[in-house]
Amino acid sequence: MIAVPIVDIFNEKVKIGEKIKVTGWVKSRRDSKLGISFIDFYDGSCLKTLQVVVKEKIIQNYRKKILSITTGFSLEIIGNLSLSIGKEQKFELLSTDIKVVGNVKDPENYPISIKKHSFEYLRKVSHLRSRTNIIGSISRIRSDLIYFIHSFLKENGYLLVSTPIITTVDTEKSSKMFCVSSLDLNNLPITKLGKIDFSKDFFGKKTFLTVSGQLNLEAYACSLSKVYSFGPTFRAEPSNTRKHLAEFWMLELEASFLDLSELIQLSENMLKYVFKNILENREEDLLFLSKKTGINILKRLEKFIISDIIQVEFHDVIKILSRMENNLSSKLIEKDISEKQEKYLTEKYFNNSIIIKNHPKGIKPFYMKLNEDQKTVASMDLLIPPLGEIIGGSQREEIYSKICKNMKEKGIKKKNYEWYLDLRRYGTVPHSGFGLGFERLVAYTTGMKNVREVIPFPRTIRNAKF
Amino acid sequence: MIAVPIVDIFNEKVKIGEKIKVTGWVKSRRDSKLGISFIDFYDGSCLKTLQVVVKEKIIQNYRKKILSITTGFSLEIIGNLSLSIGKEQKFELLSTDIKVVGNVKDPENYPISIKKHSFEYLRKVSHLRSRTNIIGSISRIRSDLIYFIHSFLKENGYLLVSTPIITTVDTEKSSKMFCVSSLDLNNLPITKLGKIDFSKDFFGKKTFLTVSGQLNLEAYACSLSKVYSFGPTFRAEPSNTRKHLAEFWMLELEASFLDLSELIQLSENMLKYVFKNILENREEDLLFLSKKTGINILKRLEKFIISDIIQVEFHDVIKILSRMENNLSSKLIEKDISEKQEKYLTEKYFNNSIIIKNHPKGIKPFYMKLNEDQKTVASMDLLIPPLGEIIGGSQREEIYSKICKNMKEKGIKKKNYEWYLDLRRYGTVPHSGFGLGFERLVAYTTGMKNVREVIPFPRTIRNAKF
Repeated sequence: MIAVPIVDIFNEKVKIGEKIKVTGWVKSRRDSKLGISFIDFYDGSCLKTLQVVVKEKIIQNYRKKILSITTGFSLEIIGNLSLSIGKEQKFELLSTDIKVVGNVKDPENYPISIKKHSFEYLRKVSHLRSRTNIIGSISRIRSDLIYFIHSFLKENGYLLVSTPIITTVDTEKSSKMFCVSSLDLNNLPITKLGKIDFSKDFFGKKTFLTVSGQLNLEAYACSLSKVYSFGPTFRAEPSNTRKHLAEFWMLELEASFLDLSELIQLSENMLKYVFKNILENREEDLLFLSKKTGINILKRLEKFIISDIIQVEFHDVIKILSRMENNLSSKLIEKDISEKQEKYLTEKYFNNSIIIKNHPKGIKPFYMKLNEDQKTVASMDLLIPPLGEIIGGSQREEIYSKICKNMKEKGIKKKNYEWYLDLRRYGTVPHSGFGLGFERLVAYTTGMKNVREVIPFPRTIRNAKF
Repeated sequence: MIAVPIVDIFNEKVKIGEKIKVTGWVKSRRDSKLGISFIDFYDGSCLKTLQVVVKEKIIQNYRKKILSITTGFSLEIIGNLSLSIGKEQKFELLSTDIKVVGNVKDPENYPISIKKHSFEYLRKVSHLRSRTNIIGSISRIRSDLIYFIHSFLKENGYLLVSTPIITTVDTEKSSKMFCVSSLDLNNLPITKLGKIDFSKDFFGKKTFLTVSGQLNLEAYACSLSKVYSFGPTFRAEPSNTRKHLAEFWMLELEASFLDLSELIQLSENMLKYVFKNILENREEDLLFLSKKTGINILKRLEKFIISDIIQVEFHDVIKILSRMENNLSSKLIEKDISEKQEKYLTEKYFNNSIIIKNHPKGIKPFYMKLNEDQKTVASMDLLIPPLGEIIGGSQREEIYSKICKNMKEKGIKKKNYEWYLDLRRYGTVPHSGFGLGFERLVAYTTGMKNVREVIPFPRTIRNAKF
């Protein structure tokens, strides 16, 4: 007999009275004095637990077997689906046969007891924390967010391109990168000049973990028109914050013949599509997370869907910020806005998600397209409260002479980018793209304050356990 | 005016006579003596090129502008869609306006001229090779294969779980791993005992690039029941073969309450679903690749869909192989079958894809479930000609005492796997899973002999360019 996922019961794919098998784990057990036990049972297919009714009269060995069942036990249960007379649930399973598949050693010290655990504690048991309702809900939403991103992009003609993880290119320049090597670190080969001889390393040169696949993606956009990648990216920044991970997933998109305003429209359309589908498919999990976090996530997403994202010019942002107390507006133009300023803009001034666009060229990378004013670039940052930047993108400089000038101004060696410059030498086209920090999107969608809750096994400074 | 993807024209989403804009690149140009030029134009949305008709009478500056256009130029074209009188194509675009967006410097030396290039040559220009028909077709098929894998697993209730890339765990033990570090290799911190002090490294210990996310995935299967991951994996093997990459993508799947025979059925169903959808959606690309490779790929996929995969016991494979000439069958039992033997089985003996199952425990990892015979494990390898193993999987050992015994026998320290053993301590369940080498699947689906053709920027020994 094939087991029925619990979600199918609540989606009414099983008839009342039908004999079915369910497999999964015990959330909790309570007993009445009348020789009846109630087991709350889950299998991860949905948030809801199935109430299993166990009667001493029916189940053999009831006292020894059933009364020793605790939270975390795995069971195989056969029974008849019935409408519940209790108000708490619509259905219940009247069990006719229960098999204990796996017990819990030392139940009193089971790491995932049904009492409330802090997020900090749960991170220490990341291999077990998906057994909690909250991490279960986040996992289902995370999975669906990825799925709906793929669906949206497929419907819009985008091709998925796997950009490389091991790379010799440093796109962001300013980011710290992890080194990848197959050399024996205890016995490094040394050149005549006394430096490490990376020509002996696996790839014949020094290699890193990617911080972005953008440049590779641009190569594919310049032949297949609309492309994207979804993969892990890495930053060796020793920061220990709520919004940074050393290893995180990024959606990167690149499209030819697309300008900044079309890119902004596309990113807005994509987010609205994804949120709409999440609301339709994961309402139960969103309601639960809203209750747990005290944030009305459904309202937040609904508001996002029906509103236009506010677009602000960077120079107007500076004007707004200069009116803030204690703010040195004169220095603002020289650097990008700070986290504190982001918070002020999204949570106070606009009280909304905003797109800041057309930043001064000095604070943005060489590949962004210079605007006609010769001072700003065709950039866009989407800030969503409370996590800040969730998307960063721009139109790319497609003119060979101009991108060379940018590189020179920023002290970037052309030699390392000859292949990238080929894209401007041979049939160059206007093109634009963005990167979306996926864990921040999941955090926004689930109401989590810390991105460590939304990736299964977070990698942060001094932590690569599991 | 928004550009129309060329695929929409061939899918008849544009009416005859309609005025449209197309954007893309020139595949070739030929001129008649009558002041008419024909441009074959592509945008990557499909294999087919759009024939653009350019008349001197209509297009201003025809001689100077149009007659200097060569392969690789990017153009923006406005024109009226028309039925073609030529036999080669159904539609053509009668252009009324053509804008040269990007030219080609030094056209005679354009790396992607329309002449035939070898795969070896194209790998040297990986940033431009997606401009060829063949790599374009492979790219579209690769993207769709990923999409249909996600669709199949979603329809079957599987959740996508992102397993970590940076890890301290070595799943396969035998595989060579890349080391990941943020230490300054020219100035490594040394402990009092004279060893490298990895406690000073980013994660506080020695870390590697993952060879498999299986163990992490098992943790999630033991709470969410059905899970999978799709991400990059790494092997620092210095092998230089047609079927190995240092960086490759892997689909890994893990499901609780699933046994070996159900796992085999699932993998077969998945491949059939994916091939069926590829046949329906990418017929044009498959036909083209069949012509180019001399392999009837459509027939190959159709045959796969209608056949049952042949399942053979490992010990029967040994009997078959022992009948081979020059084969030392007595030694066979001690190790897994070789590439040469794989070829013999799939291409000669069975002339089909086969699943070999129930291997001797000595040649398989500690986590595989011991069969009742105490000699073999519940394993399965799917071999597809000509690339060999495409899927490897097993039922996992879920019994705490048994997996501990396996570890001891294989000399694996329990200390490093305490978290993994927790899955057997707390509500353990029978479960099974497999890993699918994605590039081999793409190679099979596209008729490519070398996996370097099917990943955009291949990483192999001494090669991490682009």
